[in-house]
Amino acid sequence: MPTNSELANSIRALSMDAVQEAGSGHPGMPMGMADIASVLWKKHLKHNPKNPNWADRDRFVLSNGHGSMLIYSLLYLTGYDLSIDDIKNFRQLGSKTPGHPEHGVTPGVETTTGPLGQGLANAVGMALSERMLAQRFNRDELEVVDHMTYVFAGDGCLMEGISHEACSLAGTLGLGKLVVIYDDNEISIDGKVEGWFTEDIPSRFQSYGWQVIPDIDGHNPDEIDKALIDAKQNQDQPTLICCKTVIGKGSPNKEGTAGIHGSALGDEEIKLTRENLEWDYEPFEIPKDILEEWNHIEEGQNSEESWINIFNKLNEAEQKEFQDAINLSLPENFDDFMDDFISECQLSQEKMATRKASQEVLEFLCARVPGMIGGSADLTGSNNTNWSGSKAIQADDFSGNYIFYGVREFAMTAIMNGMCLHGGFRPYGGTFLVFLDYARNAVRMAALMELPNILVYSHDSIAVGEDGPTHQPIEHLSSLRSTPGLETWRPCDKVETSVSWKMALKNSNKPTAIILSRQGLEPLERDDIALSQIEMGGYIAHEPAEEPKAVIISSGSEIGVSINAAKKLGNVRVVSMPCTERFDIQDDKYKESVLGKGLPRLAVELSHKDWWFKYVGLEGEVLGMESFGESAPGNILEDHFGFSEENILKILKNLIK
Amino acid sequence: MPTNSELANSIRALSMDAVQEAGSGHPGMPMGMADIASVLWKKHLKHNPKNPNWADRDRFVLSNGHGSMLIYSLLYLTGYDLSIDDIKNFRQLGSKTPGHPEHGVTPGVETTTGPLGQGLANAVGMALSERMLAQRFNRDELEVVDHMTYVFAGDGCLMEGISHEACSLAGTLGLGKLVVIYDDNEISIDGKVEGWFTEDIPSRFQSYGWQVIPDIDGHNPDEIDKALIDAKQNQDQPTLICCKTVIGKGSPNKEGTAGIHGSALGDEEIKLTRENLEWDYEPFEIPKDILEEWNHIEEGQNSEESWINIFNKLNEAEQKEFQDAINLSLPENFDDFMDDFISECQLSQEKMATRKASQEVLEFLCARVPGMIGGSADLTGSNNTNWSGSKAIQADDFSGNYIFYGVREFAMTAIMNGMCLHGGFRPYGGTFLVFLDYARNAVRMAALMELPNILVYSHDSIAVGEDGPTHQPIEHLSSLRSTPGLETWRPCDKVETSVSWKMALKNSNKPTAIILSRQGLEPLERDDIALSQIEMGGYIAHEPAEEPKAVIISSGSEIGVSINAAKKLGNVRVVSMPCTERFDIQDDKYKESVLGKGLPRLAVELSHKDWWFKYVGLEGEVLGMESFGESAPGNILEDHFGFSEENILKILKNLIK
Repeated sequence: MPTNSELANSIRALSMDAVQEAGSGHPGMPMGMADIASVLWKKHLKHNPKNPNWADRDRFVLSNGHGSMLIYSLLYLTGYDLSIDDIKNFRQLGSKTPGHPEHGVTPGVETTTGPLGQGLANAVGMALSERMLAQRFNRDELEVVDHMTYVFAGDGCLMEGISHEACSLAGTLGLGKLVVIYDDNEISIDGKVEGWFTEDIPSRFQSYGWQVIPDIDGHNPDEIDKALIDAKQNQDQPTLICCKTVIGKGSPNKEGTAGIHGSALGDEEIKLTRENLEWDYEPFEIPKDILEEWNHIEEGQNSEESWINIFNKLNEAEQKEFQDAINLSLPENFDDFMDDFISECQLSQEKMATRKASQEVLEFLCARVPGMIGGSADLTGSNNTNWSGSKAIQADDFSGNYIFYGVREFAMTAIMNGMCLHGGFRPYGGTFLVFLDYARNAVRMAALMELPNILVYSHDSIAVGEDGPTHQPIEHLSSLRSTPGLETWRPCDKVETSVSWKMALKNSNKPTAIILSRQGLEPLERDDIALSQIEMGGYIAHEPAEEPKAVIISSGSEIGVSINAAKKLGNVRVVSMPCTERFDIQDDKYKESVLGKGLPRLAVELSHKDWWFKYVGLEGEVLGMESFGESAPGNILEDHFGFSEENILKILKNLIK
Repeated sequence: MPTNSELANSIRALSMDAVQEAGSGHPGMPMGMADIASVLWKKHLKHNPKNPNWADRDRFVLSNGHGSMLIYSLLYLTGYDLSIDDIKNFRQLGSKTPGHPEHGVTPGVETTTGPLGQGLANAVGMALSERMLAQRFNRDELEVVDHMTYVFAGDGCLMEGISHEACSLAGTLGLGKLVVIYDDNEISIDGKVEGWFTEDIPSRFQSYGWQVIPDIDGHNPDEIDKALIDAKQNQDQPTLICCKTVIGKGSPNKEGTAGIHGSALGDEEIKLTRENLEWDYEPFEIPKDILEEWNHIEEGQNSEESWINIFNKLNEAEQKEFQDAINLSLPENFDDFMDDFISECQLSQEKMATRKASQEVLEFLCARVPGMIGGSADLTGSNNTNWSGSKAIQADDFSGNYIFYGVREFAMTAIMNGMCLHGGFRPYGGTFLVFLDYARNAVRMAALMELPNILVYSHDSIAVGEDGPTHQPIEHLSSLRSTPGLETWRPCDKVETSVSWKMALKNSNKPTAIILSRQGLEPLERDDIALSQIEMGGYIAHEPAEEPKAVIISSGSEIGVSINAAKKLGNVRVVSMPCTERFDIQDDKYKESVLGKGLPRLAVELSHKDWWFKYVGLEGEVLGMESFGESAPGNILEDHFGFSEENILKILKNLIK
């Protein structure tokens, strides 16, 4: 029977060969962590290569995602739908083996990683989902939810701030089924980390309330195995296993150096490595006995079948509820009850901040849509992300539906991504729009992974007021709208807020940002046509009695003053554009019916000016922001920066001339 | 003589009165930290209210910036140019007392804070600058540089990931003159932090290599004083002093609750607080004896005079060098030698990645401009931010000029902000453009504070290639260009790269982002006019022999293919636009001379499409990105996404029709 070493060497060989073939890539990490990976995947990981979507599989996250050849090797070797040709196609256009692991591209890849630290935070979200789902569905002896979440993380992951945020929270929540294996190879891209990374990792993680298993030889299968057993035994604390490894292990001249981190070894060194490892096989050749030993198809199917036996003991309603949860299915009558709610809102609106309106929508929605998990980065009372049924998730009680993330915007967003990836829950979480900055790359990752994450951003402009420019977003709407695969809604009243939430919930393969005002906004009157057109992303919110001579395009808190100005002139149309991404995908006929043909256009929005030329062109005008804000009452700032009826009238008159 | 309590109560009274008057603000922190602040500012802080710019003053950073009334109170009481009327004007338009402390607005405010954790990272940059400046200028007994950096930080700061990044690095660098006072009041906005923030802070900071002084009663002046003495005695490690405090201390009904964090107390509670504190004075009234006791003008002037005596012992050349360093003055012949260098580049260019060109510029520049401090977030060999004279800054040797920041983009950027704020050095630091995301808010803060930070972002598009979409920026250029007060340069060859660096160095009151290609780019031919116009941000890079029928506007790596396509058609002008912000401030005549009048326009750039309509309008075309990238060789991706001569020709032909 092949030894653990031989199993590990098959990963080493595939990794160095694939990187060599591609001419680029990162062989150092897969070669260094091959022994650990072999023990974990052979002896511990619960998974079924024939069903990468099995709900109760263990989750494996490669947070140091540059070592993608490690997971591709494992997936190929254990029998996933990934062939040796896919391995040979490493880093080629359209291949199943991109440079960094991408969820949705490769079966068995649980999350897209590469941006360091985020996989770790995703894993916290997965481990948290497991606990919440277990609490929701497990009955007595019936453990229908019971899986581990394993993470590989390197020095880079642990240097990143998000590792602090996520791991501190994981400690507080006592996520005992989360096991992080730290690849302590003392090397990062710039060389030996002793010059910039000297913290005492074990004591740092102990300070977070983690179990730490230090000083494991990452090339000793027995030590690794024992550490994993110990990790699993502690169900009350997450575990960090610190493994000393040699980066690029096996390469006689390059192991232990930064030189092997991110470059192909070269033919000569590959030859020497083959000799050193006594690996007498051709490139991409894995001998049959090793391939058989690695193959996990039968065991994997057996594992899943055992689970199916448990699952089948749930009654039919429970089974359906479980499947619906995993699939994030909406209630069948979702559209109906939302549309009724929206119509009622239209009849009973009053002046209200959209962040307040959002809370009222949540009050309705969360009582009807199972699995909604709210939260805020320590701004619950400002974001209004809670509702009367909110109950905190705690280490000793995962039955709640609300996560107090603390002041950790980046971890919050990446943890929500992890929850979306895991299945079972529909997370939404809030912060101020300006602090989107802190979480920026996790928002991007949600879009790249096509995750239905719901991002609630209140305090959406200089109208925040006295808190001043540090708290007043300017460039953030442009930034969100320029992110592919993300939908941004900026509603102007409770009706549009309700539609925003409806659309957010219906977005099953993209994140939605809901942008909310701090200040009260007057509600809009709408006929049934306008009401039904909100979903189109843009619609006529005010049509003058006269033939329109100009069109204002506006959103959110600027709709009110725009309509007031338009009414004064009597010949200006106002288009409410809560979601430009939705509007853009309408047909040309609809778009022209809304924006008019040949009419001069004025965009009015309290965000950076440049982006709006997309709609108004060089002939149009934009009333937007070009500077940072100031500290003063919001209404005074709106006037100060020209967002007054008077100034809009002035611009319109010039435009119509 | 007034007691420490009375001194502290004057801060409490001013804070609650000012928040009450403004109708908004954060009284909890100033009231809770008043005792600590009184001890620090009365007994330890070296400062001169009459000269807030004294080079060797201690730096005081309020990282929990929402407690701005604490520092405004201190500045008023000790005699800075801040009157009681300024205090009464708290949070009003144009006042010197904005909602959060803003550097440049209020004398004595060392950095703009509010976005949590960043003040702490700025302070690391300040403390680091102090050490480096001391190494550079101190001679034998002549300690011309010798000051402390003090930080107030709350739970929010320490939850944020950036606190991990910055404090871990501060520990590695052994910044012994950095003292952080942790306001351990057990409260954040969402309530008692025990539900979301339970880590063992002392052991966490010990793991970073800090001296930790735990369990200080933040309302006991003697304990605080002793802790500060102990902190100062340890010159080898930064110190964290953990102070137990009661938020809103003094308010009988609200102290110790989240309710006092961010709201006015109300008239009734203010009355009760006055009684409780035995503070029998009118709103905004500080009795004369307390005001006199607080006044630090004389002591401050004495302190500075003592320092001037030391400074005067430097010889004239040293004095000038010191002043030039503090003022970030460029060498007098800077323009000349840069222009010569640029002209030489034009004569001797070859195909080269702009990240490589940037390194060659640095090789020239850093040898001639004193005080340049380079660095990278663990991507030195990729960003090419080092040069032959680079020498690492280390805990036992601050004579270097290069900082290995580790994988800590956010801390790197905020630390560089702190270095700019401190004076003495001109930092520049690199990462991949996509990881700008991790540091986003620190970039914004650099722009808001008008700091001459230089941000080097390489690997600037999908042409990164095989590393795939996680490493390929799309929305990042829009995001940078939509940030007020920031200049973004995206050069197309070594000449433009040199100009970018020249302009970056000359930007004394704004940050500059320099965007660099991973891949090699063909150099452009230019006549003297074109060469001199690069500084305008946009200029004609190719003029056809025939009358132009269309204009391509492009930048960076897309200039080459744009010119090739234009040459094929023979009637298309190509404008190179390395810096849109610079171009926008040129006069209309120049802009029209470059962009032409009535000519259809095509923008070609490997970044998100939407932003470019600002220049091409609704009649023009944009060849940009609308999706994320892919993992494949860069040239294949450029073709795949339409950035080929063929496709540009197709678009041009349609446009000209």
